[in-house]
Amino acid sequence: MQARIFKNVIRSDLQVEEFLSVAVDAAKKAGEVDLVTETDKACEDLIFNHLKQHFPSHKFIGEETTAACGVTELTDEPTWIVDPLDGTTNFVHGFPFVCVSIGLTLGKVPTVGVVYNPIIDELFTGIEGKGAFLNGKPIKVSSQSELVKSLLATEAGTKRDKLTVDTCTNKINSLLFKVRSLRMSGSCALNLCGIACGRLDLFYELGYGGPWDVAGGALIVKEAGGVLFDPSGADFDITSQRIAASNSLLKDAFIEALQQSK
Amino acid sequence: MQARIFKNVIRSDLQVEEFLSVAVDAAKKAGEVDLVTETDKACEDLIFNHLKQHFPSHKFIGEETTAACGVTELTDEPTWIVDPLDGTTNFVHGFPFVCVSIGLTLGKVPTVGVVYNPIIDELFTGIEGKGAFLNGKPIKVSSQSELVKSLLATEAGTKRDKLTVDTCTNKINSLLFKVRSLRMSGSCALNLCGIACGRLDLFYELGYGGPWDVAGGALIVKEAGGVLFDPSGADFDITSQRIAASNSLLKDAFIEALQQSK
Repeated sequence: MQARIFKNVIRSDLQVEEFLSVAVDAAKKAGEVDLVTETDKACEDLIFNHLKQHFPSHKFIGEETTAACGVTELTDEPTWIVDPLDGTTNFVHGFPFVCVSIGLTLGKVPTVGVVYNPIIDELFTGIEGKGAFLNGKPIKVSSQSELVKSLLATEAGTKRDKLTVDTCTNKINSLLFKVRSLRMSGSCALNLCGIACGRLDLFYELGYGGPWDVAGGALIVKEAGGVLFDPSGADFDITSQRIAASNSLLKDAFIEALQQSK
Repeated sequence: MQARIFKNVIRSDLQVEEFLSVAVDAAKKAGEVDLVTETDKACEDLIFNHLKQHFPSHKFIGEETTAACGVTELTDEPTWIVDPLDGTTNFVHGFPFVCVSIGLTLGKVPTVGVVYNPIIDELFTGIEGKGAFLNGKPIKVSSQSELVKSLLATEAGTKRDKLTVDTCTNKINSLLFKVRSLRMSGSCALNLCGIACGRLDLFYELGYGGPWDVAGGALIVKEAGGVLFDPSGADFDITSQRIAASNSLLKDAFIEALQQSK
């Protein structure tokens, strides 16, 4: 049995497989919740309770808990980062891009990712160093190398001040001249999974809600052979609310296009 | 048995039910075609051949045939208007918004509509005067009456000249201040079906390919209680490559917002 040390945490492969398995169960349970009668918070509690039963010593960061109780700092301890419902606007409207997102960090390193879309029953999973999967089948990023043939995704977000909206549409304007087309589906985590399975070639988003939107999907992108970076070209920082993702062939051209789109 | 006269065409309800049934079979057959080995044209031929076997006297208008042979004028004769693959970019990328669209006009009046998404197995159907259905269950447009709570869909299209792109992003900029959020999914016919089943509240598109993109979906919107109009507020014209759709409560505010977005 392999064991690796993440700062003060020893990771064994068998243990990580158990982390994934419990997270998948939690995501599927959450996917059954009737959110017409229950709340996002109830859904998050369900996921946390399921995980805590199995891993009582772990830490937890969730969108709803953060909204209610303030920011929990990410430490080296094993930490579950959860968005019980990514794509809330879609959910309210019945638009089928909705998911539960669960990520686990060990020593701040994303190690397990689960993103589950209960509407079309797609389960994306990944373990650090072990690959990424859609409904159990291995997935990988696209092999596209030309920006002009690439499908780009981004989101308009929720802020509607003039600076945010103008920045959003100016970037879209600039990028539309360089890529094949643009998709806006309303779920950050599913956009990352779209990159991971090659449905999308390019994704960026500025000003999304928090680390819970990306913790699961970012690991899945990496394990599918993709790269994550700040839209400026700097390193990706899970706490920054800024993300870009693509395959490695498109990264440099994508960063250049993003820089020219300011 | 009811019979209605559309100019020189007598419509009987039983006959229209048969039109729908044959069109659904054609759409499902087309949904099974492996487009990695076959072409859009082969798929269109399959649909036309299936329809012609049952209705040898009918006329046919298809995206691929038009591309190859030029425009066929829409007459009062029963005419099938077909897009064998709406969402071609999505199909190439595996993005799950792809459909077969089939519409039938009698006396130029849209009478039967079938839109089938084989990837997530969603079949939208409608008969003029008989309602709209998703996988056999009745659907209706949303009851949203406030623009600010509405989910808007549009598309960037395929033209990349400066005027088209600037018009597209200027409109998006103006509308983002007035609606809840924006979706771009890459299929005109599925956007119309999204309006019909209430997943979307507002949709407009300028400069789409042709009547085959809207012939099936437009009937389904109407039969789900929705309204179709030109984005200028004028009447919808199936040959104009300009469309807007919503429920009737949002129509006036949507037209005003579209006019202000010029």
